[in-house]
Amino acid sequence: MTDKKKPVVIIVGAGFGGLSAARALAGAEVEVVIVDQRNHHIFQPLLYQVATAGLSPAEIAGPIRSIVSDQKNVTVVLGRVTGVDTVARTVRVDNSVRAAKLRYDWLILATGARHAYFGNDHWEANAPGLKTIEDATAIRRRLLWAFERAEMTDDPAEREANLTMVVVGGGPTGVELAGSIAELAKAALAKDFRRIDPRKARVLLVEAGPRLLPSFPEGLSAAAKASLEQLGVTVRVNARVMDCGADAVVVGEERIPAATILWAAGVQASPAAGWLGVEADRAGRVKVGPDFSVPGCEGVFAVGDTAAIIDAAGVVVPGVAPAAKQAGRYVGDQIVRKLAGYAPLPAFRYRNYGNLATIGRHAAVADFGRIRLTGGLAWWLWGIAHIFFLIDFRNRIVVSLNWLWSYMTFGRGARLITGMSPARPVAVRQEESRPVDRAA
Amino acid sequence: MTDKKKPVVIIVGAGFGGLSAARALAGAEVEVVIVDQRNHHIFQPLLYQVATAGLSPAEIAGPIRSIVSDQKNVTVVLGRVTGVDTVARTVRVDNSVRAAKLRYDWLILATGARHAYFGNDHWEANAPGLKTIEDATAIRRRLLWAFERAEMTDDPAEREANLTMVVVGGGPTGVELAGSIAELAKAALAKDFRRIDPRKARVLLVEAGPRLLPSFPEGLSAAAKASLEQLGVTVRVNARVMDCGADAVVVGEERIPAATILWAAGVQASPAAGWLGVEADRAGRVKVGPDFSVPGCEGVFAVGDTAAIIDAAGVVVPGVAPAAKQAGRYVGDQIVRKLAGYAPLPAFRYRNYGNLATIGRHAAVADFGRIRLTGGLAWWLWGIAHIFFLIDFRNRIVVSLNWLWSYMTFGRGARLITGMSPARPVAVRQEESRPVDRAA
Repeated sequence: MTDKKKPVVIIVGAGFGGLSAARALAGAEVEVVIVDQRNHHIFQPLLYQVATAGLSPAEIAGPIRSIVSDQKNVTVVLGRVTGVDTVARTVRVDNSVRAAKLRYDWLILATGARHAYFGNDHWEANAPGLKTIEDATAIRRRLLWAFERAEMTDDPAEREANLTMVVVGGGPTGVELAGSIAELAKAALAKDFRRIDPRKARVLLVEAGPRLLPSFPEGLSAAAKASLEQLGVTVRVNARVMDCGADAVVVGEERIPAATILWAAGVQASPAAGWLGVEADRAGRVKVGPDFSVPGCEGVFAVGDTAAIIDAAGVVVPGVAPAAKQAGRYVGDQIVRKLAGYAPLPAFRYRNYGNLATIGRHAAVADFGRIRLTGGLAWWLWGIAHIFFLIDFRNRIVVSLNWLWSYMTFGRGARLITGMSPARPVAVRQEESRPVDRAA
Repeated sequence: MTDKKKPVVIIVGAGFGGLSAARALAGAEVEVVIVDQRNHHIFQPLLYQVATAGLSPAEIAGPIRSIVSDQKNVTVVLGRVTGVDTVARTVRVDNSVRAAKLRYDWLILATGARHAYFGNDHWEANAPGLKTIEDATAIRRRLLWAFERAEMTDDPAEREANLTMVVVGGGPTGVELAGSIAELAKAALAKDFRRIDPRKARVLLVEAGPRLLPSFPEGLSAAAKASLEQLGVTVRVNARVMDCGADAVVVGEERIPAATILWAAGVQASPAAGWLGVEADRAGRVKVGPDFSVPGCEGVFAVGDTAAIIDAAGVVVPGVAPAAKQAGRYVGDQIVRKLAGYAPLPAFRYRNYGNLATIGRHAAVADFGRIRLTGGLAWWLWGIAHIFFLIDFRNRIVVSLNWLWSYMTFGRGARLITGMSPARPVAVRQEESRPVDRAA
């Protein structure tokens, strides 16, 4: 708000891409405006831990305002973007106070993705996905209520349905969710119930393709499958989900009664392409040039899960946090150079420092190209990498210590059910007048 | 569920009273059934910290099942009690699976209290109170949104209303809330905004009586007032709230526009007296005998905020956590003695180990009868007492370390807005088509 003559860079979305773009613009003679519909950045790679009661929301999320509070050229606007006028160069932002049009000189769209149901949007109510803190706490509520219902019911079929958890999708999120649910049931909850044995809960991981973790080398897929099976997870590959109902999932021909169905089978980019009126790929991502610029839209970039890009080496840049951070930094630097009149950066080149996926608390798989690790060593690497990441964005060692501690001690302190009981996912026979249990 | 012949003790409510009764019954030849409508116990003295973004819900709450998981004679039932039949000796419990009648030999009602509006229940939507985790996160959302709205608006009157926080009631909860809100505004949020200065937020504490903390000695009331004023809180005593509206509070004759009004002015006991059909005092508490037994209801006790009792020394037992714990333990012990055929315990005698109230992070007031402390020393005492309490019920040192750390470092890491934006508490003039701010 200080100097009206400074160029304005609007960044939509305060995920990894947006925040790293903002950081790259620190010190630049620009006004940076971050627009987000939520007040917090989330460390998405650990979101599954919140969903499975291993961590609290505040342990993986930080208020955007405090993350950027020391960067004086940044203003944060809380609101939902509903459109972009690429001719007038304005972004339309709606919030609870008013609708505003913000003028930009440069626009960075880093709006991420939502889970996608590929034409079966009605499955969402029965098989929620995991992208936000609200998603995670809703899934946690659903999971914990299923155990409560299993404890309460006298009907063996209903008990079994409540003790069946199905995760759809064998990518990293699905693998991590399935492993973490199995550990929740087998370790954290094991002693908490009197009528059911939570260790008998059935966790099913369903993948349509021929193997888990398709973005990893085949050997690591096999290792991940073996580790999951050791935790008691049933893995089904080449298995296609035909329906996600209120009380059962249909896999191929088989109907599996299950109170908890979680969706980790695919994502769809945010509607950024629609705002711009430009071409998108099948997953809704904006097709960008080699420097993330959007063809035909002067001054507009798209990064992270919002963008489809092939890098200078011909590599399809994956939709992972490190790639989004690199993209944000690249675009921020590019704007700085253009403003300074320097030659633009060469085409983006993705640096793959390795891929990690964890399976429960004692195993992981890690792919560093030539070096591939599995088991306990990979798990420790995973832990250290995440602490490094967390400190990188929050700079608060207490957070990482806290989550690492509660994670390793199996504390599951975050096992709270807050908010309303979810709609009953299993059709329950009501026996209103029957006195049950201990009733006289 | 093991031996049907064991006497059944039903405890309704897993607060301090209910849990300490359950613990006193450990090892006894009884079946203990804890019924609660939530799955977690909360450490209520720190609830205001969750409301003001100092702590996360999981830091002051623990799942009931895991608190009692090692006590093998305890079963936990998640559900809402809707009635008691004192003749058939059954408790009616409704939950999402079914309605059940549970038979008891002994019944301990430890159902606590809710905030009360003394005939002005319609104020609740505008001036929420603080009793549950959901209350606390709703208040946190309301507080943080008020700052966001103040940042967004161009209307000075609307900005001022959003930066005005009114706490009604000058007891410990009101004093702690007001001090904590002042510190949130003046320390944690100070650097986070660009258009407003959160330090200019106006925090008003309104008390109808002649002084704050009426249950403390007068000198400590004055010390608390002075400490609050040093934090920038405006304290008004002898000030009666006439109305809590959607966008203003009326104190005496004065209408004060305020987006955030919080209610800490009184409580009403749960409907336990109604379930039993027995006499209650003006605050809805069951009038119990000197051993917490409910006259006319064989085998039924009421403890904590549910009960009105004068102890053996003629002292009115206060509605505080230590009193509830002592009551629960007493009743548990009493049942053990009766079952063993021993003489009953003498009439209950409340041991007052002292009263503490904190004002922000560096001051507190402490009343130990002859010894009275104020300022920093009292604050440290307060901190140590709460750690002791937390360990007592959760036995997990990591929790207390974590909260003490985040509390002392002014981290306010829990500053997340989750869930929907609250209904706009301030009437906002909509200027839909006016381009604002930076708009071209």
